[in-house]
This record gives sequence, structure tokens and C-alpha cells, in this order.
Amino acid sequence: MTRERLYIYDTTLRDGQQTQGVQFSTHEKVQIAQALDALGVDYIEGGWPGANPTDSAFFEAAPRMRAKLTAFGMTKRAGRSAANDEVLAAVLNAGTGTVCLVGKAHDFHVTDALGITLEENVENIRASIAHVVAQGREALFDAEHFFDGYRDNPDYALATCRAAIEAGARWVVLCDTNGGALPADVGRIVAEVIAAGIPGDRLGIHCHNDTENAVACSLAAIDAGVRQVQGTLNGLGERCGNANLTSLIPTLLLKEPYASRLETGVTLDALAGITRISRMLDDILNRVPMKQAAYVGASAFAHKAGLHASAILKNPSTYEHVPPERVGNERIIPMSNQAGQSNLRRRLADAGLEVERGDPALGRILERVKAREDAGYAYDSAQASFELLAREELGLMPDFFDVERYRVISERRRNARGNVVVESEAVVTVQLRDGTKRTGYFKNDHPQEAQDDGPVNALWQALKTDLGPYQAAIDDIRLTDYKVRITNGGTEAVTRVIIDFEDGQGRAWSTVGVSPNIVDASFEALNDAIRWKLVRDAAQAVAGTALGL
Amino acid sequence: MTRERLYIYDTTLRDGQQTQGVQFSTHEKVQIAQALDALGVDYIEGGWPGANPTDSAFFEAAPRMRAKLTAFGMTKRAGRSAANDEVLAAVLNAGTGTVCLVGKAHDFHVTDALGITLEENVENIRASIAHVVAQGREALFDAEHFFDGYRDNPDYALATCRAAIEAGARWVVLCDTNGGALPADVGRIVAEVIAAGIPGDRLGIHCHNDTENAVACSLAAIDAGVRQVQGTLNGLGERCGNANLTSLIPTLLLKEPYASRLETGVTLDALAGITRISRMLDDILNRVPMKQAAYVGASAFAHKAGLHASAILKNPSTYEHVPPERVGNERIIPMSNQAGQSNLRRRLADAGLEVERGDPALGRILERVKAREDAGYAYDSAQASFELLAREELGLMPDFFDVERYRVISERRRNARGNVVVESEAVVTVQLRDGTKRTGYFKNDHPQEAQDDGPVNALWQALKTDLGPYQAAIDDIRLTDYKVRITNGGTEAVTRVIIDFEDGQGRAWSTVGVSPNIVDASFEALNDAIRWKLVRDAAQAVAGTALGL
Repeated sequence: MTRERLYIYDTTLRDGQQTQGVQFSTHEKVQIAQALDALGVDYIEGGWPGANPTDSAFFEAAPRMRAKLTAFGMTKRAGRSAANDEVLAAVLNAGTGTVCLVGKAHDFHVTDALGITLEENVENIRASIAHVVAQGREALFDAEHFFDGYRDNPDYALATCRAAIEAGARWVVLCDTNGGALPADVGRIVAEVIAAGIPGDRLGIHCHNDTENAVACSLAAIDAGVRQVQGTLNGLGERCGNANLTSLIPTLLLKEPYASRLETGVTLDALAGITRISRMLDDILNRVPMKQAAYVGASAFAHKAGLHASAILKNPSTYEHVPPERVGNERIIPMSNQAGQSNLRRRLADAGLEVERGDPALGRILERVKAREDAGYAYDSAQASFELLAREELGLMPDFFDVERYRVISERRRNARGNVVVESEAVVTVQLRDGTKRTGYFKNDHPQEAQDDGPVNALWQALKTDLGPYQAAIDDIRLTDYKVRITNGGTEAVTRVIIDFEDGQGRAWSTVGVSPNIVDASFEALNDAIRWKLVRDAAQAVAGTALGL
Repeated sequence: MTRERLYIYDTTLRDGQQTQGVQFSTHEKVQIAQALDALGVDYIEGGWPGANPTDSAFFEAAPRMRAKLTAFGMTKRAGRSAANDEVLAAVLNAGTGTVCLVGKAHDFHVTDALGITLEENVENIRASIAHVVAQGREALFDAEHFFDGYRDNPDYALATCRAAIEAGARWVVLCDTNGGALPADVGRIVAEVIAAGIPGDRLGIHCHNDTENAVACSLAAIDAGVRQVQGTLNGLGERCGNANLTSLIPTLLLKEPYASRLETGVTLDALAGITRISRMLDDILNRVPMKQAAYVGASAFAHKAGLHASAILKNPSTYEHVPPERVGNERIIPMSNQAGQSNLRRRLADAGLEVERGDPALGRILERVKAREDAGYAYDSAQASFELLAREELGLMPDFFDVERYRVISERRRNARGNVVVESEAVVTVQLRDGTKRTGYFKNDHPQEAQDDGPVNALWQALKTDLGPYQAAIDDIRLTDYKVRITNGGTEAVTRVIIDFEDGQGRAWSTVGVSPNIVDASFEALNDAIRWKLVRDAAQAVAGTALGL
């Protein structure tokens, strides 16, 4: 069977930039465009030249791409010719081979928002599209508010689309601008549009997520016959966002009926990069990636329920609708008090600890994890602390050093010049395996310029000041995130601290500490981080000779 | 037209707890259950008694509710009778009027994962449901992997459902356990199930969001005739989460064809509380609420595009599919100072501060709020700190006392008996309006039994030890919650602390502090709490004579 071609149109750089709080730099736009091009989308809408300075700059800086770079704008205004509309001229001046113009398809918006006649609006669409085509460009017409308009006045909504097609538009894009259409409406209306004579291979769909149905509305339109689908990476966009291409593309490539019937410009090889692209965008936006995101989220293939986890170990297809590697993601079987022994063995194997089925240490580890989770610990998010606990029960945890004492002081006072200063200092004493003691001291004495003048940082600096033979191994550890929550430990409120770390080898790990005292909880997590680094370095050194294991 | 009844079944406390990193305490479960009950869901699935200690504790602690509290479990295992299956017995022992049992509907899972015959599985379902019904309970059967099973072996999948119905199950819930079914599949298969003789008013739908279609799949099932829909608040749940009730419920109540054809237990009045409930859950989870969430997200009614924002001012329906107040949310027009000021006046009025339209203090307050929010403050969750800021700009904030200095020490050491002890002590010096200084000191010297031996508690105790004339007013203040988040202040990471308080009059208020130092951020919030209490007490005393205002 020949597969029909479905075109993917990305508007991350235009509609995605309408997200509250999002403003891409030109450099970031270039980076995103290159990633989209490598992924294999067909069109990249770069922005509205003339309306937004960074959009204009992007079109000047845009790299050569396989994808069709597209400039966005609006149809000419009434009372002037297309050639004399300077807003439209600015769009054409970006020099892109493809131009997308938005215009009204809902009679109420024409008369109420634009304040022109229905005929003038149709003429604006016709003349604008004809002008773009006359310049040798590929033209798209974005039929704004199409679905609301079609419900109120189907003949008029269709007339705007026909005007664009007759003027030479390659595509008419049916836009659910307010995001209120539901999938069943979209499917029915698209079918009626096609029945009314506009073929599906000239129709696109542009949905918003205001009812959490943008992906489903897009699929319903494809089911009904449209052959262009618009969306954004990670579902960025005005209000609740646009249709999420990061969800749509894997569905179109991996799932039926789409995989057998439709062909896109995205290869299966490129699809395996989509998780990385999604995370890159979050990085650019300085956002925490959404763990529960379909396909690309860190939790998308995490199996927490005990029943699920044990079945997954037998056969991943029991609880996975697609294999995670197809989208460049990973399976996770987190530790939690719902997990069983098979889950545990798998988790230990991931940490390089092969334990025989039936080893009594497994039961002890599970019991200790359960008791600690009841006390407020959370090992799902702190694999390194879990590994240390398991190593202790398995007799595989060297006793690198003991903490004798620590003391941390935070103070707010007025200095000699009468200014308020906030300072922290800490002292930590440890006893090494050879019985010698080492004391580290740290004082934050540049409070004015300090980025982190708190007690936890002071403790961390003091702890890693002098650990004798281990010093070289820990110098490159860096704190990357610090999370605190008040939780229940038994019946009392306790503080749980989770800290993320990285080292010079690019390893990342997380530890957990729990105490009624936030400083003590933090110290526990800091201490675990150093112990984990030391034991992992020891495991790397063959037979552990480097650290005397 | 009579509207058909659609039942809403919430599984936030059971499937929602399968979310990676989520572990509710009993108290949190009670809080969530009460919010769900007030919202008007029909069923609240509380957990799996016996499988999870906090689940069992919740059923013991569960409040009286209108909603049907439901215990979850699995059908009996092969080779024993329902009465002799201790896992099933633990579920029944929770004593709920409604019990939901999950069992396999996919032949592959029966033979491959369970390793029993297809007949044994059907008999397990029949006998288990019959046992629940014989105890006078309402029974539900969760048909696990129903959609995958139906595709592979429709007769067998149907046979499992029929066995449950014939044994007396009130509902058979069709579960898309792996989340791979697409809306069109779900709609078609549900229609076939109904055509095969299981009526829609005995069928429920349970979807997962692995393709970002859980809401759409649920709607497709409702369109095809099911009359029970399952989901979770904020779409919590295993992997990518369950169908999001926070999106589904507004759609069912506000949008066609659902609003005219179906009736639920949720009233329009209760619906206006759904944004608050969604935020409360994020608060409990210490998560940043998702700004782009449908209906309830902070950006859901934010109109950034210039064209949209100006049209919205003429007529909100131009770019809003439902009015934000129907779901208790708010319209945001980021660039409109006009909208900002009327919004601000309403917030001030809520705090008892009536300010004339056009008062120049309004502009100053808006600017200061914006600058502080850029620095990491969050006034949405800290109304008391917002009120203090506004009072300062309005010249309505008395200068009760100044903090001269504080110093707090946390220490871990070995005591005389060689045991590890953790202690905190704090000293705070304030200067009162009459120029006199007062110093408060606190040391936690019962570390073994202390519930809160941390530096923040020590500071709090020291601060409220001796505030001279204000002492009586603050003695009854109690800390009820403490939340910490690392956030961005400008370009640097800072710590934001939000603390909730209550007093003897039953007033509850929240304050915020921000600093690179967690102790200093906490102190700011503690200090705000006392100032708020003093100014409110002063406002209560007529003309403020009691506090010399």
C-alpha cells in the first residue's frame, strides 16, 4: 500500500513564543530551527517579520535548512492594495520561499473585531494570497477561528477558504484559535469541508490545548483527511499551548493506523532524538522538564506499581505501548515501598550490583527501604542514597570516614558601616579510617556578593575542605539542585531534602536526607553524595585497589 | 430533555499515588478526599488496603463523606477460594461500601504474566465479585488491559466483563492500562462492547496519558455510551498519568454536547472551586503548578499576543472558549496596566484596604510586586506579605519593631554518653518603637524527644520570646506549614520560603521570604507573620488605640 504524505508544520518559534514568559533570542531560535530541521519537520515558521525585532533578526540569521522556512503575517487590511500594505510588505521582505497569512474565517470577528464587511474580508484574503503567489512564493492561509466560524456560519467560513485556494494558496489551515473545539467536532467539520470540495491534501490543522485535546483534535482532523498538521515542541504556545508535536510525531510514526498509512519527513532514526530535542528546549527555557510528558518525559516509562514492575521484568510490552528507545527515552523501575524483589534486583543490577535471586540481603534491603520511606525518605528521586543503603546490607560499603561533629551558624547583624549583613559559617570534623581527625572550616565572608550564603552551602564547603586521601576524588563535585519538603515521618512532620550533584566526568546523582532539622537533613544528603562518589570511584578502579577496598 | 447521569470516579489517592515521586501521608489523603467530596465526585478510590501501610491508615482515618469511599484490590488468586484469599480479605476489611477489584481482560496477560488458564481467570473474576456482592458491598470490576485484549481476542475480553456483570458487579471499568489506545479505537471498541450486550450505564472508562490523549479517549468513550469516567486531579498517575479530571470536569459541565445531555454530581458552584483544588494538590506535592494546564493553569486565560489582547478588551469571547470565572481562574493581560490596577484594587479590598481608582500608590504597589516577583517572591500564596507591602506603600504600616540581629546555631555532636545529638539555639534582638531593646533566646535542649529541633523553629521561638507590649498579641500564633522552593531571583538561584500560620481566633495567614540563605528567607517570613498579626489586631481595635496606631 502506498502511504500518503503528511506534512508537519512547526510553529514553536512563532506561536510557541506566545507562551507567557517565553521570549527566544535570535541565537536560541537558530538552535531550535536546526534541531527541528534535523528531526525532519517540513515547515518551520520562524516568526512575524516586522512585528517583532527578534523575529526579523532571525530571518536574517536563519541557517540553510532542508525544511521550508516560513514567514508569518496577516492578510492585507481593507482600503489599500496588497502591494501597498506595509505590514504585508515586511513579511514578504524576509525573503522566505513560503509565507503563511492569517485571516478571519468567523463572520462575527470580521464585523465585530475588524469592523469591515464580510465581502471586504474575503477580498483581503484573495488579494493577499494572490500577491504572495505572484511573487513566486508558496502561500498558506491560516483560517483563524475556523471551527467557531463554521458552527455559526458554515457558508461564510468555507467562502474564506475557497477564496484562498482560488487565489493559489498551497494550503488552507483550519485553526481552532480559541482552543475550544472538541475532537468529535473537529473530525465532523473537517469531513464536511472536504465533502464541500476542498481536498484534504490542501488542508492543514492548527489546534490549541485549552481543553487538553489539541493532540486528539489534530488526530481527528488527520483521520478525516487533512494532510498538514501544525504544532510546537513540548506544546508551547498561547494560553494552554498548541498541539504538542513531541507527542504527535511519535504517535504518527509508531502507532496504527498512522504508521502504515501515512509518511512524514521524520525518519525512525531521527525520532530516536526527540527526547533529547524536547529536553534541549526546556534547557533553553530554563524549565524543569515535565516528568509526565507523553513519550519524552522522565516518568513516561517509569513503572512504580509492584504488579507492573514485576510483569515488565518478564516482558516490557506488558506495560509499555511502545519501546522507550524508539523515542530515545529510558525505562525506569523506581524503588518504592510498592516494589518487590525482582524490581529490586533489577535496580541493583543498574548500580552494578549483581545479587542472586533469593539472597537474604534482598529482604533486608526491602525492609529497610520500607522503614525509611515510612520515616519520610524518598528513594525514587535519590538513587544514590538507595545504592548506599543496599551496599551496606550487602557488606559492600567501605567505611570511608565518620562525621564526629558539625556546627553551623547563620547570623544577621549590622556591620561597622551600619549595613545589614547575613553570614554563615560552618565547621565539620571527621575521623578517617586510620583514626586521624580532620577539621574543615568555611565562612562566607563576602555576603554582599555571595550567591549562596546559606548554612547548607557553608556546611558543604566545610565538609569538603579536608578529607585527606579522598580529597582529589571529591574536588570536582558540584551541587546542581536542592529540593526541600516537609513530609510525615511516622506521625511527626520532618524535613526531607533531596540534592542533585554532578562531577567532572559528567555523572549526575541524587541523595536524600530526612530529619526534623533541615540543616541535619541537608548534611545527611551531602554526606551521602561524597560517600557515593567515593564508592563509585572505587568500583571504577579495578578491584578497588585505589581506595583500599 | 432529561439528562443522563454520568458518574465521576476519582483515583488520585490510588492510581495518582503511582506517580513517580508521589507518596501521600494519611493527613494529606484526608485533605484531598475532603476537597474531592466538596467538588462533588461520586466515588473516591482511597488506595489498596493491605498493600500499602498509608493506604490502610487512610481508610481508618477517612472522614464521613457524601462520595462513595472505595477500596481497591485485585481479584482472588487461583487455587484458593475468594473467602480464603488474604489479599482480598484485607481489601474487604477496610469496610468500605464500595470495592473495586482489578483483573485481567487480555488473554496474553493471563497466560503469560499470571500463568493460569483463561478459564481460571474468568472464574477468579466471577468468584471474587460474587464474594464482594455477598458481603453487601457495591462491586466494580477493573478490566485491566481491556483495549489491547479486545484487539487480540475480543471474545475473551468480553467474557471477563460478562463474568463480572453476571456475578453482580455494578460497573465494569474498561481500562487502557498501557495508555496506548487512541481516541478513535476507544470510541469504536466501546460501541462494540455495548452492541455486544453490556449496557453503557454499567460501563466505566479508565485511560492513561501515554499518547497525551487520555482526556480525549475518555470523551470518546462517553460519546459511545459509558456512564462512568475515571481520572485523577491534575492528571497524576503511573507513567504519564491518568485522565485529568481537572480538564474533564469543566469540559463535561461547560461544553456541548455534554452540558445539555449529561448530569454529574458536580455543581456549577463547586466547579468554580476547581482551580483552587488543583493548586492545593500542587501545594501538597510541593510542585510548581503547571501554568499551561487547561482551565486551571495560571496561563490558561493569559492573552499575550497583541492582537488577541486588544480584542479581549472589546469582548472576552473573541479569544476565550469559556469564561475563566466558571472554573475559578482569572484572565491575565500581561501588558495592560489598566487590567492590573482593577485587579489590584479588588485584592486590596479583600484585605480591608479600600483604595480610590487612580490613587498613585496603586502604580507603586504594582511596580514593587512585579520587581519582587522577578526577585523570586510569590504573593499568590502569601497574601499576608502582599498586604504588608501594600500597606507600606499606602502609609498604613506602623513600625512596630526593628530586628537588630539574629544568630542561629545548629550542631551535631556526641554527648557525654557518646550518643549523637542534634541541637539548635537562636538569639534574636529587636528594637521597639520606644527605643528599648529586647533579646530573646531559645535552645532546644531536649533533642531526643523534640519534634522540631531545627534552626527555623529555634529562630521562631527566640523571636517571640519577648516583644514587650506586643507579647500578648503573638502568644497564640502557631506555625502550620513550611514550604521551601529553590527558584530564580533574577539570574541567580534563591530560596523561597512560604510559611502558614494560625492563631487562637482561627485566623490563617501565609507569608513569604526570599534570600540566597534559607535561614534568612525563613526569618523574613516569620517576621512578616508577626507584623501581619499586629497590624490586623490593631485594625480590629477601633481606631487602633490598643496598639497606639
